Amino acid sequence: MVKVGIVGGTGYTGVELLRLLAQHPGVEIVAITSRGDAGTAVSGMFPSLRGRVDFKFEDPAFANLKACDLVFFATPNGVAMQQAPELLDAGVRVVDLAADFRIADVAEWEKWYAMRHASPEWVAKAVYGLPEVNRAAIRDARLVANPGCYPTAVQLGFMPLLGSGLISPEHLIADAKSGVSGAGRKAEVSSLFSEASDNFRAYGVSGHRHLPEIRQGLSRIAGLPVGLTFVPHLTPVIRGIHATLYAQIKGDADFQALYEKWYVDEPFVDVMPANSHPDTRSVRAANLCRIAVHRPQDGATLVVLSVIDNLVKGAAGQAVQNMNIMFGFSETDGLWQLPVLP
Amino acid sequence: MVKVGIVGGTGYTGVELLRLLAQHPGVEIVAITSRGDAGTAVSGMFPSLRGRVDFKFEDPAFANLKACDLVFFATPNGVAMQQAPELLDAGVRVVDLAADFRIADVAEWEKWYAMRHASPEWVAKAVYGLPEVNRAAIRDARLVANPGCYPTAVQLGFMPLLGSGLISPEHLIADAKSGVSGAGRKAEVSSLFSEASDNFRAYGVSGHRHLPEIRQGLSRIAGLPVGLTFVPHLTPVIRGIHATLYAQIKGDADFQALYEKWYVDEPFVDVMPANSHPDTRSVRAANLCRIAVHRPQDGATLVVLSVIDNLVKGAAGQAVQNMNIMFGFSETDGLWQLPVLP
Amino acid sequence: MVKVGIVGGTGYTGVELLRLLAQHPGVEIVAITSRGDAGTAVSGMFPSLRGRVDFKFEDPAFANLKACDLVFFATPNGVAMQQAPELLDAGVRVVDLAADFRIADVAEWEKWYAMRHASPEWVAKAVYGLPEVNRAAIRDARLVANPGCYPTAVQLGFMPLLGSGLISPEHLIADAKSGVSGAGRKAEVSSLFSEASDNFRAYGVSGHRHLPEIRQGLSRIAGLPVGLTFVPHLTPVIRGIHATLYAQIKGDADFQALYEKWYVDEPFVDVMPANSHPDTRSVRAANLCRIAVHRPQDGATLVVLSVIDNLVKGAAGQAVQNMNIMFGFSETDGLWQLPVLP
Amino acid sequence: MVKVGIVGGTGYTGVELLRLLAQHPGVEIVAITSRGDAGTAVSGMFPSLRGRVDFKFEDPAFANLKACDLVFFATPNGVAMQQAPELLDAGVRVVDLAADFRIADVAEWEKWYAMRHASPEWVAKAVYGLPEVNRAAIRDARLVANPGCYPTAVQLGFMPLLGSGLISPEHLIADAKSGVSGAGRKAEVSSLFSEASDNFRAYGVSGHRHLPEIRQGLSRIAGLPVGLTFVPHLTPVIRGIHATLYAQIKGDADFQALYEKWYVDEPFVDVMPANSHPDTRSVRAANLCRIAVHRPQDGATLVVLSVIDNLVKGAAGQAVQNMNIMFGFSETDGLWQLPVLP
Repeated sequence: MVKVGIVGGTGYTGVELLRLLAQHPGVEIVAITSRGDAGTAVSGMFPSLRGRVDFKFEDPAFANLKACDLVFFATPNGVAMQQAPELLDAGVRVVDLAADFRIADVAEWEKWYAMRHASPEWVAKAVYGLPEVNRAAIRDARLVANPGCYPTAVQLGFMPLLGSGLISPEHLIADAKSGVSGAGRKAEVSSLFSEASDNFRAYGVSGHRHLPEIRQGLSRIAGLPVGLTFVPHLTPVIRGIHATLYAQIKGDADFQALYEKWYVDEPFVDVMPANSHPDTRSVRAANLCRIAVHRPQDGATLVVLSVIDNLVKGAAGQAVQNMNIMFGFSETDGLWQLPVLP
Repeated sequence: MVKVGIVGGTGYTGVELLRLLAQHPGVEIVAITSRGDAGTAVSGMFPSLRGRVDFKFEDPAFANLKACDLVFFATPNGVAMQQAPELLDAGVRVVDLAADFRIADVAEWEKWYAMRHASPEWVAKAVYGLPEVNRAAIRDARLVANPGCYPTAVQLGFMPLLGSGLISPEHLIADAKSGVSGAGRKAEVSSLFSEASDNFRAYGVSGHRHLPEIRQGLSRIAGLPVGLTFVPHLTPVIRGIHATLYAQIKGDADFQALYEKWYVDEPFVDVMPANSHPDTRSVRAANLCRIAVHRPQDGATLVVLSVIDNLVKGAAGQAVQNMNIMFGFSETDGLWQLPVLP
Repeated sequence: MVKVGIVGGTGYTGVELLRLLAQHPGVEIVAITSRGDAGTAVSGMFPSLRGRVDFKFEDPAFANLKACDLVFFATPNGVAMQQAPELLDAGVRVVDLAADFRIADVAEWEKWYAMRHASPEWVAKAVYGLPEVNRAAIRDARLVANPGCYPTAVQLGFMPLLGSGLISPEHLIADAKSGVSGAGRKAEVSSLFSEASDNFRAYGVSGHRHLPEIRQGLSRIAGLPVGLTFVPHLTPVIRGIHATLYAQIKGDADFQALYEKWYVDEPFVDVMPANSHPDTRSVRAANLCRIAVHRPQDGATLVVLSVIDNLVKGAAGQAVQNMNIMFGFSETDGLWQLPVLP
Repeated sequence: MVKVGIVGGTGYTGVELLRLLAQHPGVEIVAITSRGDAGTAVSGMFPSLRGRVDFKFEDPAFANLKACDLVFFATPNGVAMQQAPELLDAGVRVVDLAADFRIADVAEWEKWYAMRHASPEWVAKAVYGLPEVNRAAIRDARLVANPGCYPTAVQLGFMPLLGSGLISPEHLIADAKSGVSGAGRKAEVSSLFSEASDNFRAYGVSGHRHLPEIRQGLSRIAGLPVGLTFVPHLTPVIRGIHATLYAQIKGDADFQALYEKWYVDEPFVDVMPANSHPDTRSVRAANLCRIAVHRPQDGATLVVLSVIDNLVKGAAGQAVQNMNIMFGFSETDGLWQLPVLP
């Protein structure tokens, strides 16, 4: 059994990690920490886990995280860069679900996240944990930077096009819609039911933190810099991201066949039949990305629809997928639950 | 592997049965039928099942249901009573998720369901499939009448009180709230998003079909006739039933201890700590009933809160639980998924 | 024009008051205060008011509230009892939308609200502002205690029965469901979209602050003490309260006729036809209470359904109705908008 | 008083027209028809109108529509083209809320709507009822083609840019999101609460009927043909459209100032301050379009956010606005209600 610890388990990413890990056949959870809720039973905070997850949040100062084979950081941005190096130096492998190690350009990171980076040296060693791009490197990684939710949906959606050079990389548009759980379990007025339900709005149009991460990922895939306009929106669903992607076609091709072939061996990417419109609920609670490709009126603009559950393929599920790769499990272990519909 | 068939798999109960059975270790689905959608791929109608459930709906006339060990009827009321007897006579065991075999008094059934019963003889032989009441009889049943959703939540909530004689059985009140999936996947104006969302209402106050089923179940438990007022409501959630139960206390007792002891060995009934308020989401997508007991201001009225997912413990999950009992599986096989929260 | 001020206008009750008052033909808003948001444009916080409400929140210390004819307190509990007396002494009339002056028994109030009351003498002079009970007294009141949302729905629902002595007053049950806006515009985890949507739960079963207020009101109407079990629930709608009321019938009667006659002259109470089930959305954004009366199976238990919009008839609308009575307006002035459906 | 009739009043557009007209100071509703529901009280179907709208649906064959000054058609596509000409010939003025007279190119209309047009001569005489474009022509129109909901949001959003020639007209993108009421009050599985809630999806990517209408409108504004990719989505809100518009900048300008100046005299278009993100709820139940303009990272792509309530500015409200213009009312008569928030 692989011994795992979770730092910061009181948010939605944390409880989702617990849901998945508690059902994983090869894992033993040995510690879960929370500075603010140390001593509280996990199942007291999350009754959905009653009878199945029987331990308490521990103070990080006292938790024996160094005895773990793997520690997940499900903390706010800026925590893992402080605490992970000590564990890494002790030989513990780490998956950070926050943004600390996602951007290779430390100055760029510092600009968008408005703090000084505490361990630039580990940024250089970190592997960006998008298995469909980086599987081999993840296998041996000591530190995995688990991708953001928007970046996962957008990169998987654009990858076959950019990888094959069939679109202009200058004017990419990603119009993305996220469920409210993406804002986390923080008490903020803008995330209240009475504010977010029966309502739809854009946010962060002038610049969202996931923009540099997406741009970095797409540029790596394309092998050259891309131009991207990224507009995130909030839609009143709990879980789910729907990315609607627009690109100008450069070379003609059978785009449907391109996508099907590109992802034929990927267990967690489903290319839908031509003319499909994937629902976010078709991946609810499952580690899946479903993609559909459209070329309206046989015109010059290609439209790609890409959906994930932001808490699963966009966070905790992808983290478990990375763990499976790192520790030699079957990649689908603990991740084979069917989506919950309706 | 137990060979199972599903008659009528295009509703929410059907797709939920498929979700659970596709993840059950001891079951092989050999046929799923739909008169209207024969020839359609199951995963075309329910993309959540893509890649995991690869067969088509068959015409019931041609499906080889007699080769099954067990057939689930996930059909509208009035179908199983027509079609199940032939299968039963051929030695196939049957679980009916509709109401055809739930009410022992056939005249009463005919009054509430407004049709003549086609096989009263099988009503007499059917076992009411509430495992927490009838586990032994279910084991050997040829025909199991799977309980309704409201009746499951209300009976499990009242059972310890009525079973121990500590409340007056004359003036029981069950104020129950259901998610909209309880109305099924039928195209009806009253179930439209624009009608049911951001709205709350009662319905069927003059008399709902689940009333005689609940009354029958509670009277059996109490060993004498009970008086019950049952008011169902529609709440804008997809899945979930919340029953708020009121009873007049006859004899004093430690009601919390009574409930904990009553259900101590039940894998799918969770008695919450004193002063709890179970969320419907705490059982979302799981085969669980969570119960909390309150005695406000130490007064004469006891308040019991009982929640289930109407599609799982209130329908498909309970049907699988019954199957597990009938075929000697561990009762939790295929039913051990954790609730999905948030 | 009547000059009005609003103390504490940044919550949902405040913005709803602004919406109604901005459309009232006989009112001039001269000040709106907020300690925390002084200097902020009202329409910056609430863009729905852009172009129609053009002033800023003022610091209460500097606002000239004494120049008002009427000041509404839309503040948290405990504020009006501190600040209203000075205004009252200066001849300003006051409507308090919080709970400070609702409970005549000061010791009882202090127990439920867990603070010492700052002006018991004004409790004695306050008029409970439920127009259907107290219209005459409201007319000349200097200080009106605007009722709570649950108390409005429950009292209007029970009033004809208790007023006519046709039910047993010992075992009244009020099973009430509220939209999430009832919790206010406070940043709390339990009110987040991802917590409250697709979920249903009870809360405060052991005792909710509206219990003593309802009990006081029902006892006054009945002319004797009543026994009441009150269970509030949270339902995922923004606006709306649905109270389901249960009473044991003592004397036979035509209850439908009783209700229709009782409320025949009330502009804001609508007795629905027999066998109706009022939707909360049928009163959305309007100052209305709709009521339906049921006697299931002609039994001993009467069921009354009573719905309001918690922010209108349950708060701001009722406050404006009280203002209309106090200042000799037509009672429907500014309150004649039709409900918004769908 | 202007005498108005409504043909087909049982859908959401019909009930919204009734809500607005019942509060309009200069209008008398003399007839409302419904073939299927003739004889039913309007307020029986829509309890929100109880006590305020007291007539019944009439059979269109018997309704005296020719006595009206104005008849609104709130019917499915294909009805007004059959029935309006007789009324028009009798001197009655007509506003059609469906699509029959929106597209000048009859062949194009017939292709998208898959029927033969019954009165091409009236297509030629019809005035496209977008007041911000066509106010003068509407004044004297006998027949007004009320715009679609998506076309209203998209045209108002792009108009200042195309009208001033500052963007490339070849690669316009309109990524639009609609509430579910846009699908009407038809019983369809895809509009059920259990399908549409907690879910987000695109639809009609290969070609939606509003595409030719939008393209026609934008081309008229630009004075040359435009290239447009239009992707509609369904978001789980009842009312509301959010159009996110993308254009490539051709000439530099102060776009914020351009928009503010363009719409300075429009009572129903609100240009928000720079860096705003309009919520759909900020226009809920009101005849308003709110617009925000963004130029992310000072790049080459302009992003415009445009929100309306699809049932008001996108349908019934705009129809009343057109009526106000046609009959010399103040343009805001009956349309001055504030949005309902929260």
